[in-house]
Amino acid sequence: MPHPLFERHRALLDRAVQAIHERSYWSAFPESASPKVYGEGAAEAGKAEFDSFLNRRFPLTQPATVGDVGGERSPFGIPLGITYPKPDIDGLFAAVGRAHDQWRKEDPETWAGVCLETLARINKASFAIASAVMHTTGQAFMMAFQAGGPHAQDRGLEAVAYAWDELSRVPRSAQWEKPQGKNEPIRMEKRFRVVPRGIGLVVGCCTFPTWNGYPGLFASLATGNAVVVKPHPGAILPLAMTVRIAREVLAEAGFDPNVVTLFAHEAGSNVAQELALRPEVRIIDFTGSSANGRWLEEHARQAQVYTEKAGVNQIIVDSAADMKAVARNVAFSLSLYSGQMCTAPQNIYVPRDGIDTAEGRLSLDQVAESIADGVRKLLGDPARAVEVLGAVQNAGVLRRLEAARSLGKVVLDTQSIVHPAFPEATVRTPLIVQLATADRATYLNEWFGPIAFVIGTADTNESLAIARDAVRGHGALTLSVYSTNDDVIARAIDVAEDAGVALSINLTGGIFVNQSAAFSDFHGTGANPAANASLTDAAYVASRFRVVQHRMHV
Amino acid sequence: MPHPLFERHRALLDRAVQAIHERSYWSAFPESASPKVYGEGAAEAGKAEFDSFLNRRFPLTQPATVGDVGGERSPFGIPLGITYPKPDIDGLFAAVGRAHDQWRKEDPETWAGVCLETLARINKASFAIASAVMHTTGQAFMMAFQAGGPHAQDRGLEAVAYAWDELSRVPRSAQWEKPQGKNEPIRMEKRFRVVPRGIGLVVGCCTFPTWNGYPGLFASLATGNAVVVKPHPGAILPLAMTVRIAREVLAEAGFDPNVVTLFAHEAGSNVAQELALRPEVRIIDFTGSSANGRWLEEHARQAQVYTEKAGVNQIIVDSAADMKAVARNVAFSLSLYSGQMCTAPQNIYVPRDGIDTAEGRLSLDQVAESIADGVRKLLGDPARAVEVLGAVQNAGVLRRLEAARSLGKVVLDTQSIVHPAFPEATVRTPLIVQLATADRATYLNEWFGPIAFVIGTADTNESLAIARDAVRGHGALTLSVYSTNDDVIARAIDVAEDAGVALSINLTGGIFVNQSAAFSDFHGTGANPAANASLTDAAYVASRFRVVQHRMHV
Repeated sequence: MPHPLFERHRALLDRAVQAIHERSYWSAFPESASPKVYGEGAAEAGKAEFDSFLNRRFPLTQPATVGDVGGERSPFGIPLGITYPKPDIDGLFAAVGRAHDQWRKEDPETWAGVCLETLARINKASFAIASAVMHTTGQAFMMAFQAGGPHAQDRGLEAVAYAWDELSRVPRSAQWEKPQGKNEPIRMEKRFRVVPRGIGLVVGCCTFPTWNGYPGLFASLATGNAVVVKPHPGAILPLAMTVRIAREVLAEAGFDPNVVTLFAHEAGSNVAQELALRPEVRIIDFTGSSANGRWLEEHARQAQVYTEKAGVNQIIVDSAADMKAVARNVAFSLSLYSGQMCTAPQNIYVPRDGIDTAEGRLSLDQVAESIADGVRKLLGDPARAVEVLGAVQNAGVLRRLEAARSLGKVVLDTQSIVHPAFPEATVRTPLIVQLATADRATYLNEWFGPIAFVIGTADTNESLAIARDAVRGHGALTLSVYSTNDDVIARAIDVAEDAGVALSINLTGGIFVNQSAAFSDFHGTGANPAANASLTDAAYVASRFRVVQHRMHV
Repeated sequence: MPHPLFERHRALLDRAVQAIHERSYWSAFPESASPKVYGEGAAEAGKAEFDSFLNRRFPLTQPATVGDVGGERSPFGIPLGITYPKPDIDGLFAAVGRAHDQWRKEDPETWAGVCLETLARINKASFAIASAVMHTTGQAFMMAFQAGGPHAQDRGLEAVAYAWDELSRVPRSAQWEKPQGKNEPIRMEKRFRVVPRGIGLVVGCCTFPTWNGYPGLFASLATGNAVVVKPHPGAILPLAMTVRIAREVLAEAGFDPNVVTLFAHEAGSNVAQELALRPEVRIIDFTGSSANGRWLEEHARQAQVYTEKAGVNQIIVDSAADMKAVARNVAFSLSLYSGQMCTAPQNIYVPRDGIDTAEGRLSLDQVAESIADGVRKLLGDPARAVEVLGAVQNAGVLRRLEAARSLGKVVLDTQSIVHPAFPEATVRTPLIVQLATADRATYLNEWFGPIAFVIGTADTNESLAIARDAVRGHGALTLSVYSTNDDVIARAIDVAEDAGVALSINLTGGIFVNQSAAFSDFHGTGANPAANASLTDAAYVASRFRVVQHRMHV
């Protein structure tokens, strides 16, 4: 009999597996924050739950706790004052090791069932988690709700579906009968046991702690591995709430809750490296800087390391049917969450001699101005603007913004906006700077934040060539092309497939290049330096477990 | 329309996919060398083809050839005198790169179709390849035919089946329709393109050039990657014949034959390292020593590296219903191909105070003597013995044999046998030496060749503990247990799953611990130091390709 939690969620899992095979539109967790969907009072209850966490010790009881740790600050300026259990590393790993030894012996149905119940309860906590995401990352509330809630939950479920899809194709046993001509066949019974790889470590980031954290957490958990979650010191709360829910589900189902633990730490400590090199850690899921990601790939040799690092996302503007629609779309992509997204575009290549549009030829300056104008229109009303921009997550973004202003001709300067509800929030509109193709040393680096470069190229051929080199050499999660010319589109597809980056073509409607939909879009390809894996595909789960057989005559 | 070669072999591929999901008995390529199966005259024609290769340049035309290379010697003493094209490394990679750029753009059906046709033609050449395997590895003819022919072909097909199983679950395109309440849904078309990882390098070994070489070759080829095959300098011919057939199939189907190339070299050159570090090489499949395998894992960081290295295979003797049957089975495993198998047992743990058998208690010495007696009976007739033992592949085996004789009490000394048909062959019977548990530094190393140690332990608990530590610390491909006690069997299963090694239980019939059947047994687990991957499972193929998408409004 499969575990009751598996039976409870089996229909959802089957539907999710269908979705990953089709990759057409599907979502398990509604993105609408409407009371009609989440229930009357859900929003208020979530806010109240979030408030209940403020200025106290977070209610999480873990073994080997030796003190308190914390120090998150809300980018919106409200005091958080939350502390978390500080673990003794050896003590925690001893407890996690014991939990892993139990968990690994359960069957794939049980692993899936516990994951699915955890996701269902996380979904119920979406409003509280949304506030937690908002006040750690700086995302505006609705984005924090959607991206940090249901969209992240969908990504987690997607990982469970891929894991289940692989695990369910490993037979539990086989009767092996080899014919021997006229003699009796040789008969053996073989049993195949899924053996999880070992303890997983999830290294969270400060901008999308749940969206980027759930795939690794649930991929490892659903393949039978215990997981230690190490949040970014600036965004602990969303993952602490997640870990708390997972531990509740585990304990209620009779499992050792230490299958999922939190390892919170303060900024400036090197605990991430210490954790990553633990011999017990056999899987690492990392989202963060290229330097840290490369360090892990280089040094954590005992583990299978999945990294999402920095990249240079690019837009190639070749021609346009409706430049205003292009500008509207690009402006939103530059502005959403102040460009603090690994998928946000940075470099916009435009031929120096301009482009053809339905309204006639536009010069490079006119194209740049059109995009700047799109940003101005989008962000003209401060009350509306802050719901797009959110707040600046950290001082590094401000430093880069300031430094970028002197790199070239400023097409659109960044502006401070006073947040009507949170006057202490740091809110900045995008900066657009015009560069020359020769400024490679500048624009081939990632300038994380609301910073875009318009780069005048000799022609679209050069735009494509630069884009290809940039993806190959520096990595990218997204590439975007605008053209009315089928041949240019075909060549952009070639470049994307050659360099290994997802391509969006002529986005002018309600879809933006920085959006990646679970169950449909592969996030990252694993084929360029920005990420060594994709969220989520078979390769993302298949190495998290092994199969160990035994055989005997019957 | 799928490629005609895909249509031709589709039923076989479908059956192979069924087999990997069931892992019960199935084989695509008959292991019987009977004329009823392979046709009258097939054996003679194969022998004639092999003879036609001797003492001349091997008929393989490759680009960037700058000379000749060769130097294989038959372990059976006949002169080979074959040379192969010596490639200029830059020139060859330029040609392979061009071929890869074409091949990667084909579809999964085409990749599979070419692989399947190649395997079908390799199967037709089984007799010729058997002679090539025999006269490079030292395997006796029937083993060379089966393991080097149909069994290797089955392993290659198994890799194609896993690749196809993964590729066929990636949709080619999707219509994505996101509901917008009362408004029109947002509609996008998404296309998903399988993008091969990059050029594969197959590093062959001198004992099973085809059996260990085909999985990587066909896994990479079936996922769209060009493959450079670098045989061991002592066993070039079997892989040269394989490459020649693959190139013929490619050329006939209108593809660049440089999708598959041979990189032969002489012993003592460091070309393997040079090849492994080429930036174009993105996948490496290696079989060989632990030192070389670890070097690749450590240094070839640009590539996904799959290694099968050395290990310490072990037998735990706890009790026996029929000691003679145990001894017969173990004796065959020690003798087959002179123990020159990565799966051959080395360490035999027996409690110092003896074991219970159906015929009463047997002392440690009696158990050791029983196994020695099994070897003597198996190999009593030289004409029959050489068909089990084959010939010693290289001088290293002889050096180890000589060194091992002085390590402890010799239970059974190695003997030279004169091969009736090949008087110059070096044929040696197994050496069995008794060691104490304290001799860990000796028996926890691999003594590749016909060398076995009987180790007296305090009890089966200690045997299990040593076995677990050995697998974890030194790696193993096989573990075997003999016991009439269900509790011991259960604990042995625990040890095997804990340490990550395949376990065989009470083998006394016609199945031997060193045999691993394609489509049923997973060869290696990837969970201990002997191999970082399994032949063959989803993890073995899933990282050989990526998916790159593009999307646009419709």
